[in-house]
Amino acid sequence: MGAPVLVINSGSSSIKYQLVDGETMEASTSGLIERIGQSDSVLTHRHAGERAVREGRLADYGEGLEAMVAAFEDAGTPLADAGLIAVAHRVVHGGERFVQPVVVDDEVERAIDELSALAPLHNPANLEGIRTARKLFPKLPQVAVFDTAFHATVPERAHLYAVPSAWREEHGVRRYGFHGTSHAYVSRKAAEMLGKSPKAVNVIVAHLGNGASVTAVERGRSIDTSMGLTPLEGLVMGTRSGDIDPAIVFHMHRQTGASFADLDAALNKESGMLALSGHQDNRAIERAAAAGDRAAQVALEIYCYRIRKYIGSYIAALGGADAIAFTAGIGENSAEVRAQALSSLVALGVDLDEAANAAGGPVISTPQSPITVMVIPTNEEGEIASQTAALLRS
Amino acid sequence: MGAPVLVINSGSSSIKYQLVDGETMEASTSGLIERIGQSDSVLTHRHAGERAVREGRLADYGEGLEAMVAAFEDAGTPLADAGLIAVAHRVVHGGERFVQPVVVDDEVERAIDELSALAPLHNPANLEGIRTARKLFPKLPQVAVFDTAFHATVPERAHLYAVPSAWREEHGVRRYGFHGTSHAYVSRKAAEMLGKSPKAVNVIVAHLGNGASVTAVERGRSIDTSMGLTPLEGLVMGTRSGDIDPAIVFHMHRQTGASFADLDAALNKESGMLALSGHQDNRAIERAAAAGDRAAQVALEIYCYRIRKYIGSYIAALGGADAIAFTAGIGENSAEVRAQALSSLVALGVDLDEAANAAGGPVISTPQSPITVMVIPTNEEGEIASQTAALLRS
Ligand SMILES: Nc1ncnc2c1ncn2[C@@H]1O[C@H](COP(=O)(O)OP(=O)(O)O)[C@@H](O)[C@H]1O
Ligand SMILES: Nc1ncnc2c1ncn2[C@@H]1O[C@H](COP(=O)(O)OP(=O)(O)O)[C@@H](O)[C@H]1O
Repeated sequence: MGAPVLVINSGSSSIKYQLVDGETMEASTSGLIERIGQSDSVLTHRHAGERAVREGRLADYGEGLEAMVAAFEDAGTPLADAGLIAVAHRVVHGGERFVQPVVVDDEVERAIDELSALAPLHNPANLEGIRTARKLFPKLPQVAVFDTAFHATVPERAHLYAVPSAWREEHGVRRYGFHGTSHAYVSRKAAEMLGKSPKAVNVIVAHLGNGASVTAVERGRSIDTSMGLTPLEGLVMGTRSGDIDPAIVFHMHRQTGASFADLDAALNKESGMLALSGHQDNRAIERAAAAGDRAAQVALEIYCYRIRKYIGSYIAALGGADAIAFTAGIGENSAEVRAQALSSLVALGVDLDEAANAAGGPVISTPQSPITVMVIPTNEEGEIASQTAALLRS
Repeated sequence: MGAPVLVINSGSSSIKYQLVDGETMEASTSGLIERIGQSDSVLTHRHAGERAVREGRLADYGEGLEAMVAAFEDAGTPLADAGLIAVAHRVVHGGERFVQPVVVDDEVERAIDELSALAPLHNPANLEGIRTARKLFPKLPQVAVFDTAFHATVPERAHLYAVPSAWREEHGVRRYGFHGTSHAYVSRKAAEMLGKSPKAVNVIVAHLGNGASVTAVERGRSIDTSMGLTPLEGLVMGTRSGDIDPAIVFHMHRQTGASFADLDAALNKESGMLALSGHQDNRAIERAAAAGDRAAQVALEIYCYRIRKYIGSYIAALGGADAIAFTAGIGENSAEVRAQALSSLVALGVDLDEAANAAGGPVISTPQSPITVMVIPTNEEGEIASQTAALLRS
């Protein structure tokens, strides 16, 4: 391995990890620790086609990461011998300050902590992972890579909301955008597939996973993205509403007396595809729709219609696009979602090749299509490792 | 006059009225009563180039409408001799029930009252106007014409929000859309200018006044529109934010403790162009921008960028458009807004004729432009009178 990086993605009760080469962006090992803090924690470790599972309580992130170290040892590839150049952490919110990856010190830790006001669900968990890893690997640089950073180039016309100035100036209210490492990676790959420099093309990336966002990438730079201050805005997602009339919040409070916390939870956790179809997982929704379930059919129609409208608006924002790239769980795997999202876009320069789409691409538009449409598997951990290696080289 | 209709638009402390021919859609008289309930009420009456002003307290809508009747008499054109076929009332919210104009009876009054939950700022005032006019003109049919009605054809994919089912099923949460009479009138006029039947063309209408909305009209039917449950969603407006991350509401509550009512008022009355530039009126903003005021320049850039994105998304929603029509105060008068909103749309089929745009149209695209762009003065009162006459004929 050229530049082995341990990439850590800490959630509220889980840790995902990968050992990735920062040069080739390939992972040799990956793992998932779930239900941290509960009695039935599970660690699943994958290496060279082998899968090892460890069950039993892991009280906290510290015990979780120690179990990870043990799992590497048990697999015969101890981390101590891996030649790690760094531990890299995915951090959701970098605010206006962190527009590049950064080596973590106490001051950076404090800044990430302060940014928890903008991402109360995510940054505290990310920070806990960082703190724990700093103790466990005191000699290695710990690098924070931010989901928001790729969108630091979004100009005022797209990142400012028309809300009172105090909200913008004192309370950090602006569009930040998320899924940045995925949009960065996929838009670069799309340019590569076109045989062009990223600086020579305009690409629209649709990242469709449990969370979902679309980004307009102009000559390598993000100029607009559908998520906003938080990951709630934009496309319909598994459990998030995406775009709504903000007055719905006031209306529902008047109607039911629901509190801010109730409404926040409802829009983030009980809305989206779950609210429309009863299912959160796209595979279940497609199965139900195929079996004739009308709610599931309508949910898919709404889901795809919203993607289609964002594509149209970003073609307008970019003044024309060279490529549209689909990525993440749904974008990579659902030919049906891609086809519906791209239907009736001929007037905008999208000519879908139905057979290629059904086959999964990578190119799913016809050779004559003015806009090339692609399916590109994302690699967020690879991108994080690569950015980390680049930072440490510089 | 063929079918004289007295059209009344009642606001929270004002009444606008026009005497309109429901056949030609032309107004012979118009008036405005302001500051009803205050000591300095003013009635301004215009007829045949003459303007009459009456100052002094008008305690309520009853006194206001009586002063209107007197003003018609003073002008030598008493309403009693006008041969009125009806009094028509603009009503903002018709909910799911009112998808056509309707003759008002007690039951309709109650229904409009119940719809106040969806439009607490508007429907109560509209209803007060209706009640007062029914007393004053007991022999005339009173007709309610709804701002939402033209959007009754918006399909599920565009009118459903991905929010919990109880919100949709029990609390009326869906996209309704507004400015319906304007979008109906202008889209029909646009088809006329193309020399085609409305059923043969797709038109995007940008109604840009103090409130602003864009509508996608497919073969004469509204299939999507930017305002939603309330007029808050969509474009940036004079004092309304338009689209934002709904989580901004939760964030600002956590940051400042602001209440639902505070945040509702802030987004409806202290946001939009006012918050971005310090001015609510487009003329003041354009003047400030021309004088080098950076906030005003950025505000205009955001305003136009949002219009551009909606146009792109509606071209995608329609699968291609034949015409784009600009209307209302800003749409009819600001060549600068139109030019900025249409910039970089060549890839989508818009080729602006700059000289024609500067001259105010009516057609402002080049003869080669795949999409014809037009400036069309709206005529909401004419449309209301015409729909009223049609209802009474039927
Ligand atoms: N073969 C498939 N066909 C359709 N949808 C799929 C398929 N595989 C995964 N998905 C969907 O992808 C989504 C998860 O995407 P993923 O990118 O893994 O999410 P996350 O945002 O958590 O990383 C789920 O809705 C899942 O149903
Ligand atoms: N000549 C003009 N140039 C630019 N803007 C104008 C001009 N005339 C009117 N406007 C703008 O039109 C807006 C009011 O539009 P209007 O359709 O009258 O509003 P309403 O929604 O209240 O009916 C204001 O922002 C005003 O500045």
